[in-house]
Amino acid sequence: MRKKLKKINAAILIIGNEILSGRTQDKNVSFISNWLNSKCGIAVREVRIIPDNEKIIMKNIIILSKKFKYVFTTGGIGPTHDDITAQSISKAFKVKYEYHKEAFSILENYYGKNKFNDGRKKMAKMPKGAKLIYNPSSAAPGFMIKNVLSLPGVPSILVSMIENCKKYLVKGLKVNSKTINLYTVESNISKQLNLIQKKYKKFVEIGSYPFFRLGKIGVAIVARSTSLPKLKKANEELIKLAKTKNIKLLKL
Amino acid sequence: MRKKLKKINAAILIIGNEILSGRTQDKNVSFISNWLNSKCGIAVREVRIIPDNEKIIMKNIIILSKKFKYVFTTGGIGPTHDDITAQSISKAFKVKYEYHKEAFSILENYYGKNKFNDGRKKMAKMPKGAKLIYNPSSAAPGFMIKNVLSLPGVPSILVSMIENCKKYLVKGLKVNSKTINLYTVESNISKQLNLIQKKYKKFVEIGSYPFFRLGKIGVAIVARSTSLPKLKKANEELIKLAKTKNIKLLKL
Repeated sequence: MRKKLKKINAAILIIGNEILSGRTQDKNVSFISNWLNSKCGIAVREVRIIPDNEKIIMKNIIILSKKFKYVFTTGGIGPTHDDITAQSISKAFKVKYEYHKEAFSILENYYGKNKFNDGRKKMAKMPKGAKLIYNPSSAAPGFMIKNVLSLPGVPSILVSMIENCKKYLVKGLKVNSKTINLYTVESNISKQLNLIQKKYKKFVEIGSYPFFRLGKIGVAIVARSTSLPKLKKANEELIKLAKTKNIKLLKL
Repeated sequence: MRKKLKKINAAILIIGNEILSGRTQDKNVSFISNWLNSKCGIAVREVRIIPDNEKIIMKNIIILSKKFKYVFTTGGIGPTHDDITAQSISKAFKVKYEYHKEAFSILENYYGKNKFNDGRKKMAKMPKGAKLIYNPSSAAPGFMIKNVLSLPGVPSILVSMIENCKKYLVKGLKVNSKTINLYTVESNISKQLNLIQKKYKKFVEIGSYPFFRLGKIGVAIVARSTSLPKLKKANEELIKLAKTKNIKLLKL
């Protein structure tokens, strides 16, 4: 039986010296990944963080846009000299970098004609043919060109815009997950875990992640699958494994 | 005059489905980047986050190890089935994946002969010829092979091990930075900022990052350079720009 929905993948390209240098802690990867999976059934399969450098941005856009169904970029679409994402993507796709009429009038309205200076006008410049991703919090829109969606780097603004990406995305199969938290160490269960993973190889992906909580050591076992029945079965075996080994399950 | 130290670069390869899926927020990139710059004068120039997949790990190790002076990997060196970093790196470099004698005895000592099961033994398997990165918090060592240094994914353990990487690294020029925080919006200063950046193009990299703090909007202007005198000069011009524009500086 053919399924109607299939797995759809995406990459995230984080553009910004401030993330690479360690000055700023990225928060967009986990937000975008979670949103794409839960709301659109799209799985992020690669993330790259790169500097504000035209050639490097171009190269990565070309590679990632070929390799993945969608590419999300964050950062570099503001008004200052180091915001070069839109012009770099234009170059990568060999399209003009020009004023987007609607973006221009959105920004002109927002700032008022007198305060609509060159820096602000810059935010209306995009690859020719781009579609807008509206920005309800600070007006300056993101854009989509080919399979690349460009969003700002400031997390609160990005979060406010993400729902406006939805209409451009083909929905895929959602990956469901079940987590059990065990009061044990990984090496105590690694052998049996491996057997369960092998049994469900094609359908369920099982990950094992140590944690430290309130002074206690534990392992979170995360099972992920697009098939809910298979996921449930694998999870039951994991719980059985814990019982057999007399391992306490932690309720969170 | 030739400088004794030069800029040395590195890449970070984050290996782990839990980061890609958004389940876990990565904290290692900013820690490693900051440490490398401040303690070793090494600048991280690219980060990639990839899944626990042998072929993908191999491909990225081959590409990044050619492109950068050092590659730091995090994740995938534990005892469970989804920990495949060491074997994937062995394959990438076409060396044997085998027990490291010293790692084996460290782990055997730590767990005691009776509790040294297969999962735990797995953590002593590494690419042939690897040098150890000692682990003061949970015994299982990381390793270095060629220019690749492999560390665990759990941030607290990684932090405890990072100093033990130092002896394997050639020191480079430290990038110094100065930050001024202005109560303004980016588009108010973007033109003048661009002129200052152009003037110091070769020596100082100037970044502009909006922030929201205590309900107020501001911009952090970060100047970065390996030359302290040049950095000081650029920073003075930035402060002058703020004064000319009557912008309040925020002391943090």
